[in-house]
Amino acid sequence: MTPATPSPPTFNRVAMIGIGLINGSLAKVLKRDGLADEIVACSRREETLTRARDLGIADRTTTDPAEAVIGADLVVIGTPTGAAGTVAEAIASTLDRRAIITDVGSIKSKVIDDVLPHLPFRGRFVPGHPVAGTENSGPDAAFDTLFVGRHCILTPIAETDPDALATVRALWEAAGSRVEIMTPAHHDQVLAITSHLPHLIAYTIVGTVADLEDHLQTEVLRYSAGGFTDFTRIAGSDPVMWRDIFLHNKEAVLEMLGRFSEDLSALQRAIRWGDGETLETLFTRTRAIRRGVIAEGQAYQRRAAVSDRRLDED
Amino acid sequence: MTPATPSPPTFNRVAMIGIGLINGSLAKVLKRDGLADEIVACSRREETLTRARDLGIADRTTTDPAEAVIGADLVVIGTPTGAAGTVAEAIASTLDRRAIITDVGSIKSKVIDDVLPHLPFRGRFVPGHPVAGTENSGPDAAFDTLFVGRHCILTPIAETDPDALATVRALWEAAGSRVEIMTPAHHDQVLAITSHLPHLIAYTIVGTVADLEDHLQTEVLRYSAGGFTDFTRIAGSDPVMWRDIFLHNKEAVLEMLGRFSEDLSALQRAIRWGDGETLETLFTRTRAIRRGVIAEGQAYQRRAAVSDRRLDED
Repeated sequence: MTPATPSPPTFNRVAMIGIGLINGSLAKVLKRDGLADEIVACSRREETLTRARDLGIADRTTTDPAEAVIGADLVVIGTPTGAAGTVAEAIASTLDRRAIITDVGSIKSKVIDDVLPHLPFRGRFVPGHPVAGTENSGPDAAFDTLFVGRHCILTPIAETDPDALATVRALWEAAGSRVEIMTPAHHDQVLAITSHLPHLIAYTIVGTVADLEDHLQTEVLRYSAGGFTDFTRIAGSDPVMWRDIFLHNKEAVLEMLGRFSEDLSALQRAIRWGDGETLETLFTRTRAIRRGVIAEGQAYQRRAAVSDRRLDED
Repeated sequence: MTPATPSPPTFNRVAMIGIGLINGSLAKVLKRDGLADEIVACSRREETLTRARDLGIADRTTTDPAEAVIGADLVVIGTPTGAAGTVAEAIASTLDRRAIITDVGSIKSKVIDDVLPHLPFRGRFVPGHPVAGTENSGPDAAFDTLFVGRHCILTPIAETDPDALATVRALWEAAGSRVEIMTPAHHDQVLAITSHLPHLIAYTIVGTVADLEDHLQTEVLRYSAGGFTDFTRIAGSDPVMWRDIFLHNKEAVLEMLGRFSEDLSALQRAIRWGDGETLETLFTRTRAIRRGVIAEGQAYQRRAAVSDRRLDED
């Protein structure tokens, strides 16, 4: 069923625009496996670039995106998604005409809308989203196994060259990811419920706690082991990145949020009126979903174990 | 600051009413450390009792609570909280007058209201709640380190004998827990937000997914790594236990749910109107809370490392 693992792609110069958790981890993969002769990291903040050099994940650094992409055969946009269009505009004139441009943003339609008008060679654009991360950010949070066993969704546009898509696919497979292809709109809909809505809810409940009376809040932190910890982990994620995600995947998030709110109101009503049957029926259904998630994960691990050499090393 | 660890208490006969994750794990601690000459397990289901015997966590078993408590010097009620009153009524006439009765329920006020009228000797009742668990249930889910490093909250009533309280405290400390004392009402308020509301929300969002169109649901399960997995873990918890918790801590849960819903509406509005500043401000605050949770955990680990021999063994 699964094709043999292709040879990992190699690059002369990779330009990383933004060098945080995701791009930093990808840079570590490139370094570890010798897939890039040179990595150029770009960030607006000098201190981030200093860390990237100290960590050995960048050979050269610059605060100027236009300079960063000169001579690069791969450009990875890893800024908050709200900045992707600005980056594309900045690099358009210095970009090599054969350079592949990809990104790692958690939303795809809006990024594509923002980036595309600026690109001189649309066929080289391969929008992507590695579904991986931790609540930490910045180059110090990066590690080279971040993508192992995780999905990476690529959402090529109509003009994307097959060879550019194949190269980006092979890159993520080299990082240990399982690559899936879908349309940008479908990606945004699926992620709205698997990722964006859970983050929004986690942010909300942790915010509710932040507004509690002081004495109660202290105890909430102390006894948070009973469920709340998972929410704080999610709600510790990068604020600017998530602000952009909600603003730029607005329609899909509001749609899923509407469904969630209706369902929550129904449960609230069941609690108020002592309707134990409604509660128990729902909780039994959700337990089945949990088993579905575990089964999907296990099925993937089995497939991956036979097809992916990186997972074998784990 | 922390008193020296007391000697673990020993018992002639411990009656476990209900032998699931919590009571099963406590039974494993008693067996491991030789703290009980005999453990009698009671459950309505014969297959559960067979597993308890096979796992070596019960020396004797019975489906009759009244029989289980005969000659016991410790009785641990570990049923869903909705059954605690029925259990108390059933054991009242066969209970030894010196037997300590405790429970492990996640809500305290309602359990005390249900149990107390049936007890012939109120001074021996020590309501308790080990804040520990996994999403798995039944005796097969039990393990003897479940309570290590976790809080156990005891909520003595006005009549509780100091020696009974001290014995139950020492029992949980022997299991590796950090014991805290508070009033039943305060316990229920703190747990409503640290545990009950997070569970309610997790149940809701996983239920929302369960109602999605089939093709979308399949993909949600596949890409659930991006935040949703944490929710499915929580929402995989025991349905009957959680039904009872929501029904019996109704006031505190509805109060916290009201605050949460207001906050969620405010965020929804910010997304709809593109108010990025409100989003970023909140997300920055919640990140600070996350750091508070981590700091509280680390502070506890440091205290525990010097004061608790069991943690040292870890």
